This record gives sequence, structure tokens and C-alpha cells, in this order.
Amino acid sequence: LDASEWVNSDPIDVAELRGRVVVVETFQMLCPGCVQHGLPLASRIHRSLGDQGVVVIGLHTVFEHHDVMGPDALRAFVHEYRLPFPVAIDRPVPGRAIPSTMDRYRLQGTPSTIVADRAGRIRSVSFGQVDELKLGALLGRLLAEPAPADAPGPADGAEG
Amino acid sequence: LDASEWVNSDPIDVAELRGRVVVVETFQMLCPGCVQHGLPLASRIHRSLGDQGVVVIGLHTVFEHHDVMGPDALRAFVHEYRLPFPVAIDRPVPGRAIPSTMDRYRLQGTPSTIVADRAGRIRSVSFGQVDELKLGALLGRLLAEPAPADAPGPADGAEG
Amino acid sequence: LDASEWVNSDPIDVAELRGRVVVVETFQMLCPGCVQHGLPLASRIHRSLGDQGVVVIGLHTVFEHHDVMGPDALRAFVHEYRLPFPVAIDRPVPGRAIPSTMDRYRLQGTPSTIVADRAGRIRSVSFGQVDELKLGALLGRLLAEPAPADAPGPADGAEG
Amino acid sequence: LDASEWVNSDPIDVAELRGRVVVVETFQMLCPGCVQHGLPLASRIHRSLGDQGVVVIGLHTVFEHHDVMGPDALRAFVHEYRLPFPVAIDRPVPGRAIPSTMDRYRLQGTPSTIVADRAGRIRSVSFGQVDELKLGALLGRLLAEPAPADAPGPADGAEG
Repeated sequence: LDASEWVNSDPIDVAELRGRVVVVETFQMLCPGCVQHGLPLASRIHRSLGDQGVVVIGLHTVFEHHDVMGPDALRAFVHEYRLPFPVAIDRPVPGRAIPSTMDRYRLQGTPSTIVADRAGRIRSVSFGQVDELKLGALLGRLLAEPAPADAPGPADGAEG
Repeated sequence: LDASEWVNSDPIDVAELRGRVVVVETFQMLCPGCVQHGLPLASRIHRSLGDQGVVVIGLHTVFEHHDVMGPDALRAFVHEYRLPFPVAIDRPVPGRAIPSTMDRYRLQGTPSTIVADRAGRIRSVSFGQVDELKLGALLGRLLAEPAPADAPGPADGAEG
Repeated sequence: LDASEWVNSDPIDVAELRGRVVVVETFQMLCPGCVQHGLPLASRIHRSLGDQGVVVIGLHTVFEHHDVMGPDALRAFVHEYRLPFPVAIDRPVPGRAIPSTMDRYRLQGTPSTIVADRAGRIRSVSFGQVDELKLGALLGRLLAEPAPADAPGPADGAEG
Repeated sequence: LDASEWVNSDPIDVAELRGRVVVVETFQMLCPGCVQHGLPLASRIHRSLGDQGVVVIGLHTVFEHHDVMGPDALRAFVHEYRLPFPVAIDRPVPGRAIPSTMDRYRLQGTPSTIVADRAGRIRSVSFGQVDELKLGALLGRLLAEPAPADAPGPADGAEG
């Protein structure tokens, strides 16, 4: 996660998320599929599974209409839509449309949903509308895996 | 309708709409209720009743987050959401948050739906989520009224 | 309307509905499209336009699974789904699967929506899922037509 | 599971399901909450997680309107709604409204969702509308548990 800035949160060091199951929801604020499906799903995950040890992070991966989806516009969007989770801005790469993290994971577009396990390994990347039950079951499986020995703080994946 | 600019259309002279039933859907591009309810309803009216003589116009009445909802941002929004009807930008008033048309009709916020009859008289202004059947019935009643004698072009409210 | 029995209401004499706009929603209690679309729409019409002069009547037109969609089963269904309008049972025709009214209007199946004007003339018959705005506009147009001189009681189609 | 009859399937011996995660969706065919929420969710579980080792079974627990929700009526319902999973009929108890299984698990009403693990132990019983992500995560956790040594056939919970 190569973030140039954070909205809705102090900067998060991804290393500190070791021990948690992490969902990164990539989006663009003017992408209808993100507003209708991706972000509402991410909010539901945050609300339903947050206390079981799942961390949700939004990632604003702007690859078009760059001038009107800058940090100030994003802040207004996050405020109006009351997104309940931290949002990182994917670092722009000078001279290229596609930002840094989006490029590294070769994401096809927005919305994309990235799932990482307690050890920080990417276990799933999906593009477009997601099957909510399959995603829920994957998160349940990953929550059932033991946290790595060096994870910071207590493992809090105990079943709610 | 005091428009400073038009998106998705050449400028429209409201006087030329005499003879038509007109729905003006006011919105802000970062207003969740507009994106989820108001604009989809306006698109459905355009598609379902356009050929019966109903004209739909969007009106972007920005009264907050002015710097990130300017004309360029709106053009990107209209493009991404594929809005099928003309969109006017409500004329900003220097030194005031509320733009010109919004102020004149004392609209409470967005989304608001304004309905005018064939003679150009405002017959309904509603704020928030709209009862689709009641709005449909109102439009049907207004379509049943005769066009004024001085309406431009042929009256085309004949039942489809 | 050839009813063998009424549920949710005393028997209604259709002649007494002259002066009203009438929507007859035909359905079968075990038809998924009726339960998901037709009947909810009919309930919305009843609630939104009932006070403007639209009368909604359900018509149970059983043409399959006759033994398990009899009057007792229908009464339980109407009770559980809390249908707010009168429901007529289309009169069975001995030796035939298709009941009387369904046959007379040559309905293609369920759900079908029949609309009659204030003079009792059928103005629209549609099969399957209905465009809510088009139906609303049709009802508005019909409400705008004058009631026939011989309609019983006061014409109550005045705009709400 | 005390079934008097099976619809949509040969009789299933629950003992043979050891090794699988089992979801029992209890319903009544004339219960609106079951038709709108419970059964569609059960069908989605069947389709999304069936190949990961989750078995879905419907259980018709009739506790009211007994005469119109008998086996023939249920068969017509299952056929019309195209339920894709086996459906058991909860065994009636002479002289009592509440059938056998419903009574044993002291279910509050319909829809209720019962989840059993690979060893056949009940792990969750919920009444009413279910949080799809929480249920998905629970199923994922249970799929991650090892099958008991005496489970019939190969354990097939391998991640799809």
C-alpha cells in the first residue's frame, strides 16, 4: 500500500496490521459501480466483521479525471457518504495515469477488492461486483487461521 | 432557470419548452440521496415518459463544497453516470453559498424535484425521496391538459 | 369481472365503480412474479392513489395447481401478506383450467394488470412486470377525464 | 431433523452429512419474511458455497394454517419458486400446532436459520433476517475446521 495521504484517519502503517485480516477496497469517487456496490459492501464488512478482527481500508486509485478527483474532492466525498473506515490515496506516479499501488498489483479497474491474511499475504484480488457470501466465507476461513507469532498486540480474532 | 452553463446539451431556452411538461431535478454531484434516488428517478422519467411530452432537465445547485463541484467535476460526473438528459449549472451568486435558481424557488436542499405544466407554471416542488406513482400520476394529469395556444411547434403530448 | 367469491371485502358490484379509475391486478398466490412485483405494485397504487379516485382490486385467476390454491389457501395468503385491497376469486369453469374472467380477457398469464377508466372501459391490459411511471402517468390521464354523468355518488377524482 | 416426508430429493439421512457444514433454513410457504429473505438467502448459500462443502436443507415447519400448507401445496410452491435444495417436512405432532423439530429446537418462528458444523453440532440458531456477511464468515470458519475422523466419504471442504 503506497499511500500519499490518508483521509478519515491518521496514517496507518500496514506492518501494524499483521495479525488482522485486511480488506482493501479500491475505488474512484466518480465510479458508479464503486458508489453502488463496492463501497457499501466495504462499509458492511467494517460494521459486521470489524469486531471479529477484519480491518477495512479504502484505497482511492485514481486513473482518470485526475483533476477533479484530488484530495479535497475525496475529503468532501468521504464526508458526504459517511464512509466509516480509513481511506488512503494511492500515490500518483508522475507522467502516468495509473497510480503506484494499482500498478504494482496490476488491478484491472475499480472497484477491486484485495484480501490479505493475518500474515500479510494477499489471498484474493477480485474486480467488479463481489459475491457477498463467498467473500464472507473467505474472511471466516482467514479469521480461523492462527496469527503469526510476531503479530503486534493480542490476536483479536476470537469469534464474536 | 438561471443557468450559467449547460452540460450534455446546447443551452436550452426555457421559453421554448412551453407546451411541454417539464421536470427539473435539482442535485449536487456529491449528494448521496441524489445519486441513489433523485437522478435514477429522473433518468427513468426521461426514458419512460419522454416520448409522451415530458422533458427532464437536471439542475446542479451547488450550495456546499463549491471548489470540488465545479463545471469540470460535473462534466466528469455526468459522463461517468451516463445521465441521459441535459444538465444546467445553477448560476453562482458572488458572496453567497446558495446559487440563483435555488434561492429564487427557496429550495430546501437536494434532491428537489420541480414540475411545471405546459403553460410554464410550477405545479409541484418536492424535497427528498419522491413517491414514484404520485409523481407519475401528476405528470399524467398535466399531460392531459391542453397546450397553450402560443406554444412553439406541435403539441406532442398524444398518448404513446 | 366474474367473481365466485370475495376475500377481504364484501362482494363488490363493478357497476358501482363507474366514476372511478379501476386497476385489476390478476395473480396466483404461488406465482413468484406476482408476489415479488405485481402485488407490491398494486398495494402501492392503493396507498398512493386511493384517495385520488383509483380503486384497486385483486383477482385470483388460478389456472394451475388448482387444488392447493382454493379459497381457504387464498384467505391465509391474503391475511399473511396483509393485502390492503379487496380480492375477487375468478369463477372456475367446470372442465377447464382457465377461469372465467381470465378467459374472457384472454390474459396471457399472471401477473396481468388491467386498467379501466371512469366510464368502465378497459384502457390497458399488460402482462408481466410493469413500468411504474408509465402506469402512474396513465392513471393520472384517466383521473383527468370527466366522470360519466350517470356515475354513482360524487366524483372524487379531485387532485389530492 | 425429524422429517415426515422429503420434497425435491430422496430422503436424506442426516448422519450421512457428517463431515459437511449444514445450513437448515426453516420456513413456511405462506410466510412473507421467508419468501422475501430466508429462502433467497438459502438459495444463494446453496449456489455460492455448495461446492465448498456447505449443504443447504429447507425445513417446512408449519405451525399455522395447517390445512393449506400440506405436502401437495408445498410441492407446488417448491416447483414454482424453483428451490434448488432438498426440502424436508417437519413431522406434525398430533394435537399440537408446532411440529416435531421446531419444538425440539424451541424455534421462535419462521424464518429461522440453523447452522451445524462438520461434527453435526449445532453452532448457531437465528430467527428473522440474517446478516449475510456474518453468516458467510461463520460458514467459512466452520469449513476451516477439520472433519471428524469417522465422516463418510472424502472431506470436500477444500477451498474452491
